[in-house]
Amino acid sequence: MMAAEKEIKTVNAFIEQFKTIVGEGFVFVDEEVLNNYAHDETENLHFLPDVVIKPRTAEEISAVMKLCNAAKIPVTPRGAGTGLAGGALPHFGGVLISMERLNSIIEIDERNLQVTTEPGVITEVLQNAVKEKGLFYPPDPSSRGSCFIGGNISANSGGPKAVKYGVVKDYVLNLQLVLPTGEIIWTGANVLKNSTGYNLTQLVVGSEGTLGIVTKIVLKLLPHPKYDLLMLVPFNDLEKAGAAVSAIFRAGFTPSALELVEIDALKIVSKMMDSVAVPVNDDIAAHLIIEVDGNHMDTLMNEMEAIATLLADFDCGEIFFADDAQQKAELWKLRRRVAEAVKLAGYTIEEDTVVPRASLPALIHGVKELGKQYDFHAVCYGHAGDGNLHIRIKKEGSIYSLNNPKVIPSLKAMFSLVKSLGGTISGEHGIGLIQKEYMDIVFDQTNLSVMKGIKKVFDPNNILNKGKIFDLA
Amino acid sequence: MMAAEKEIKTVNAFIEQFKTIVGEGFVFVDEEVLNNYAHDETENLHFLPDVVIKPRTAEEISAVMKLCNAAKIPVTPRGAGTGLAGGALPHFGGVLISMERLNSIIEIDERNLQVTTEPGVITEVLQNAVKEKGLFYPPDPSSRGSCFIGGNISANSGGPKAVKYGVVKDYVLNLQLVLPTGEIIWTGANVLKNSTGYNLTQLVVGSEGTLGIVTKIVLKLLPHPKYDLLMLVPFNDLEKAGAAVSAIFRAGFTPSALELVEIDALKIVSKMMDSVAVPVNDDIAAHLIIEVDGNHMDTLMNEMEAIATLLADFDCGEIFFADDAQQKAELWKLRRRVAEAVKLAGYTIEEDTVVPRASLPALIHGVKELGKQYDFHAVCYGHAGDGNLHIRIKKEGSIYSLNNPKVIPSLKAMFSLVKSLGGTISGEHGIGLIQKEYMDIVFDQTNLSVMKGIKKVFDPNNILNKGKIFDLA
Repeated sequence: MMAAEKEIKTVNAFIEQFKTIVGEGFVFVDEEVLNNYAHDETENLHFLPDVVIKPRTAEEISAVMKLCNAAKIPVTPRGAGTGLAGGALPHFGGVLISMERLNSIIEIDERNLQVTTEPGVITEVLQNAVKEKGLFYPPDPSSRGSCFIGGNISANSGGPKAVKYGVVKDYVLNLQLVLPTGEIIWTGANVLKNSTGYNLTQLVVGSEGTLGIVTKIVLKLLPHPKYDLLMLVPFNDLEKAGAAVSAIFRAGFTPSALELVEIDALKIVSKMMDSVAVPVNDDIAAHLIIEVDGNHMDTLMNEMEAIATLLADFDCGEIFFADDAQQKAELWKLRRRVAEAVKLAGYTIEEDTVVPRASLPALIHGVKELGKQYDFHAVCYGHAGDGNLHIRIKKEGSIYSLNNPKVIPSLKAMFSLVKSLGGTISGEHGIGLIQKEYMDIVFDQTNLSVMKGIKKVFDPNNILNKGKIFDLA
Repeated sequence: MMAAEKEIKTVNAFIEQFKTIVGEGFVFVDEEVLNNYAHDETENLHFLPDVVIKPRTAEEISAVMKLCNAAKIPVTPRGAGTGLAGGALPHFGGVLISMERLNSIIEIDERNLQVTTEPGVITEVLQNAVKEKGLFYPPDPSSRGSCFIGGNISANSGGPKAVKYGVVKDYVLNLQLVLPTGEIIWTGANVLKNSTGYNLTQLVVGSEGTLGIVTKIVLKLLPHPKYDLLMLVPFNDLEKAGAAVSAIFRAGFTPSALELVEIDALKIVSKMMDSVAVPVNDDIAAHLIIEVDGNHMDTLMNEMEAIATLLADFDCGEIFFADDAQQKAELWKLRRRVAEAVKLAGYTIEEDTVVPRASLPALIHGVKELGKQYDFHAVCYGHAGDGNLHIRIKKEGSIYSLNNPKVIPSLKAMFSLVKSLGGTISGEHGIGLIQKEYMDIVFDQTNLSVMKGIKKVFDPNNILNKGKIFDLA
């Protein structure tokens, strides 16, 4: 041990070497820059790195990793910093590698319906670039206007379209990865089917930057659907709204989005925006936002009508059909801003629970009951079609942060409920720093030790995003 | 080492304990039974196990694994024995665990569009059972009438529908797994989105029974499409047929099947079946089989017509439209029997190459050139829409088996070609025993050592399906 500890040098001794690798202008130790990279979109967390490095290539990252691995310096990879689980926070200090300069779309391959991109491209920029060629990359987290595609890979992000089109993992064909030890590999091949050895690609997706740093990404694309239709459906009963969700799928429909927003959340976000006239009467408990898409407008119109007829059985209110592109855009903007709005209103802790779709009413009911028991107020919204419900918590008269020990029992009770419904604790945000102490609610020790064993295979010195998802012994 | 070796006892010493665990009638050591489990559908391979065990439950398998792990006895799990890569062959002898008695469909969950099944259910039986409820499990390997769903998980199987609906991995939500050390875990949760720790589910899919024995499977289902249309399109030029495939997708169509069968293969299979009048004139080089499916017949008719118009640009011949259910069934039967027929005709070595779709013409051209160079004859067929081409090889005057050293240079050349086209060596069959010596053509040593490290995490004593995919040092 003594000999090993002697090997650990302070980061400062390596600054000049980092500058040699990535260039003088891309190594930062000044407080202002360090502060910018000390937080993400997770509430109340702030950890300063010792140095921020902004490399341009996989080879530069490889060289940095080799130095850090030899010296056992913690390295935290970071995308756009929009994460909600603290996954990109340098809570051990050390080196923070920002991926912002790996920001080129390398090739849109129209013949194979694939795109090869660097990880620092903003998701919406990528989506627009392929759309110009008539192509479609569906996963669209609410933060798509600012998050990086690399961060989406890291968290296995979803978004509204996931209900029809799947999540990030369903589009990733191949990844270039810098291992914690500095080797550069490709995880698979640029093919649609692959039964050649273990699926390292899928293992890396959702591993939150703990197994390697993704430096190139090959994604499958689809032809872009020509049309979509959108409607907003009010319900006077939250659980009936949840039951309607399940009925839509059982009837054979596959909407391209099926979102639920509880009225409390909608009231808050409506105040921020006055563009769409969303009904927020007192007799409304929640809205469903339902989108269908496809290449034939007649078919879509029929489908919308049939869904509307079905929803009448669940006592829905008057349906609002978004008539044109502007109305649709405004409705989506409203949906995308819910999280931000309710956070500003004091609902500071966001959970990312997911259950089998039909258990949604039981989850909603259970969360409200837990609120009474643990004295918190919760608003629910999210991707109801996937059973992925975001629950935001507020507690009057108390700073309800993760540092507050009052939070832990409430969350443990909520996650035990989720587990009992066949669900799990994160559908699209990841575990990061803030959920790791709840992992043993949904996994037994054998699962966790297998995961830790895998981590050690990739990262024998435990330097890359150390202490995220779980702590190694 | 001496102490460790002393621990290794012969399998025979454990027979009575195996009988206590699974029941006397389910432990077999007689030669006839052992012989039945000594081969699969891979050519010319025969390895006798020491004992065949037919357990009924995960708990029984767990007890057997614990004994074998302690005594370091090799264990080979086996589904229906329809594999094409020798993945289920007990080439180290030891214990063979047949999964045939774990054959119940546990629950079809119509509210969540999920099915929970045991692994020993025949794929087609599962498909039919969910179809009765209006639901759809798309992956349909050619062997679907005899293969087990568990084997499909093991190989990450595909089949014709993969081009629109994806492969097995796209439907697996959660797996109950007996680890080589005997612990029983669930890999994930029964949810559509999951960002909770490493994706052990996706790691196990396609791992060919080397990481654990799957004992329960939770699959996502879709609403069953109401209609489908099928056409058979002759081409006088093989490479033009390949180019047409890419053009169909580029034009925005997503057929539910897009198969290619070279004329030599079609002639052979046509002789076996006289039900469908498939044109096999000398000026035809290949046929495409194209299916579209959906819920609106008008749309499908229009789509078929549009595809037909597009294909005319590639000098296709007269298109045969399958008019009714019987014609469609016969055409599919013909397609499904191609592998069997060409094997009987002496094309004994089947490869499972996969490339980006647009590289299909280059692959076909390259394989024919290699045939001239290495003096073999090849027929090509398969899932052209996915770029997944099966290549069967015949060499006159020579038993062209894997044991024949003349094979290896030809296959190495073929796989190097595949790699140079951005592809890989197996799209849906797996690596098993017969492809492992080619793994270093598509993966570098770092990939292989990561995979081997993962294997050691799950199976520290290397007893489960030892020597499949790769050899451990």
